[in-house]
Amino acid sequence: MKLTILGCYAATPRTFTNPTSQVLEIKNRLFLIDCGEGTQVELRRNKIKFSKIEHIFISHLHGDHLYGLIGLVSSFTLLNRTADLHIYGPKGIKEIILLQLRLANSFTGYNLYFHELTSAESELVYEDDKVTVHTIPLKHRVYTNGYLFREKMGIRRLNAQAAENYGVDKVYYRNIVLGKDIPLDDGRIIPNSELTFEPVPPKSYAFCSDTIYNEEIIPIVKNVDVLYHESTFLESEAELAHKTMHATAIQAATIAKLADVKTLLLGHYSTRYDSIEKFREEANTVFESVWLADDGLSFDL
Amino acid sequence: MKLTILGCYAATPRTFTNPTSQVLEIKNRLFLIDCGEGTQVELRRNKIKFSKIEHIFISHLHGDHLYGLIGLVSSFTLLNRTADLHIYGPKGIKEIILLQLRLANSFTGYNLYFHELTSAESELVYEDDKVTVHTIPLKHRVYTNGYLFREKMGIRRLNAQAAENYGVDKVYYRNIVLGKDIPLDDGRIIPNSELTFEPVPPKSYAFCSDTIYNEEIIPIVKNVDVLYHESTFLESEAELAHKTMHATAIQAATIAKLADVKTLLLGHYSTRYDSIEKFREEANTVFESVWLADDGLSFDL
Repeated sequence: MKLTILGCYAATPRTFTNPTSQVLEIKNRLFLIDCGEGTQVELRRNKIKFSKIEHIFISHLHGDHLYGLIGLVSSFTLLNRTADLHIYGPKGIKEIILLQLRLANSFTGYNLYFHELTSAESELVYEDDKVTVHTIPLKHRVYTNGYLFREKMGIRRLNAQAAENYGVDKVYYRNIVLGKDIPLDDGRIIPNSELTFEPVPPKSYAFCSDTIYNEEIIPIVKNVDVLYHESTFLESEAELAHKTMHATAIQAATIAKLADVKTLLLGHYSTRYDSIEKFREEANTVFESVWLADDGLSFDL
Repeated sequence: MKLTILGCYAATPRTFTNPTSQVLEIKNRLFLIDCGEGTQVELRRNKIKFSKIEHIFISHLHGDHLYGLIGLVSSFTLLNRTADLHIYGPKGIKEIILLQLRLANSFTGYNLYFHELTSAESELVYEDDKVTVHTIPLKHRVYTNGYLFREKMGIRRLNAQAAENYGVDKVYYRNIVLGKDIPLDDGRIIPNSELTFEPVPPKSYAFCSDTIYNEEIIPIVKNVDVLYHESTFLESEAELAHKTMHATAIQAATIAKLADVKTLLLGHYSTRYDSIEKFREEANTVFESVWLADDGLSFDL
């Protein structure tokens, strides 16, 4: 899993900071999470292939998470996209996109599927052979979901040394990887577990933005490898955070601690601060493993 | 009059080129013309005060002229704008903006007025004591208008030397500027024209994008100081220009010549070309005074 931050600042786009958008790569699939204005330019800047994006997850219908989507959908057409595109987001997102396409008299040359969300409970919204995506209901000024990406458990890996020690012929190696027990010429049957290593532990990534401090998400994001939790404000603006239904760095760290996540990734910073280092300092008073998102950074999970 | 090009490339925004947007300054008023994605960042980059923009003119509802508008409207709210904002554009523009504001549950803190256009004839859409703006009906794949900005004739200017020669007392100078004839002590009456210079000739700017080659605009843009005429393609793509209802550099120059404009300003270049200098070369085969728009350039008219 590799996460690329295209933008991680709140509110208006500025000359050197972008509103929210991230690309999550899982086993060669690309998932786009949120799409603030300027996302398609940031995709280019980060040399991410437009055509590899087949699923876009939108958290909520505030501009700094959405207003780059119509441009991206249109550019896909101009770039002669043919692959299906799936968009997941709050009810209303379909009307926003289709109205603009209709009035521009420019429909997509590819199939565009909308998956509109209305549930207040976490639900499975995407699944393939390698990945599942569940919503994480968040509390914000409008209907909002985070998204939990989980790799599925991979297959067990061949322990070639053990197979050789047992004298297993190489023609059986494929069966070993498929999970079968292996009969030897002397009649013994070697259990698969003795011929294989455990699978690589599946990784998980939870994206939570925007949200007020909300302990109800803890069971959903429990033990994830990386939790991206919005931290729009520092503690000095805790009251403003509450009023605008955002979170502080310390609140994000508290969720991380209570959910026993491996690493907390902070972002969605208000542009009022000169430096983002202070976000880490404050979060570290509660939780140790804290990363700071910043535009253009990539993280290997 | 000062024109600043925020973006002048067709289709998708890219790392170093922006879709259409321009700021026209006339006697300390700012008019924004078109608003492709990224316009608000380009306004910042060009150090143009958001709050001074009170009138936005949108040519048509294609994304490369429009998709930055909703973000700008939203940012005005975040920046605590209080001044009225007027938006002029094709019918449908109000629905696009209001739908998105409604679904974001974030209404503007200022008054937002829409002036939706449907006429196929040129019409006066804006007037104040210094400026008029008329539409220029264009022919494109969707309903499109260019805009003609005209300064009004200014007042005559005092010819201080002439007044002194006639022995006019300085207490009458205000009346001279107001256009009055001036009585002397000896009974003679000096006509105002002998005490003043002609006003500074009013300037005019015509913005025409996007459009196919269309001689019907010639009477409207006749004799303007600067004609911005789209030139999406070079002559080698003349057929594609016709098919997509765009114009070539030579077609833009032909309109400039037939309309006897002072200067032709080219823009809305397709991003397929490595250099834009060729646009000037081709236009120069028909018309001499050709400027090339480019992102971040300013022109004093």
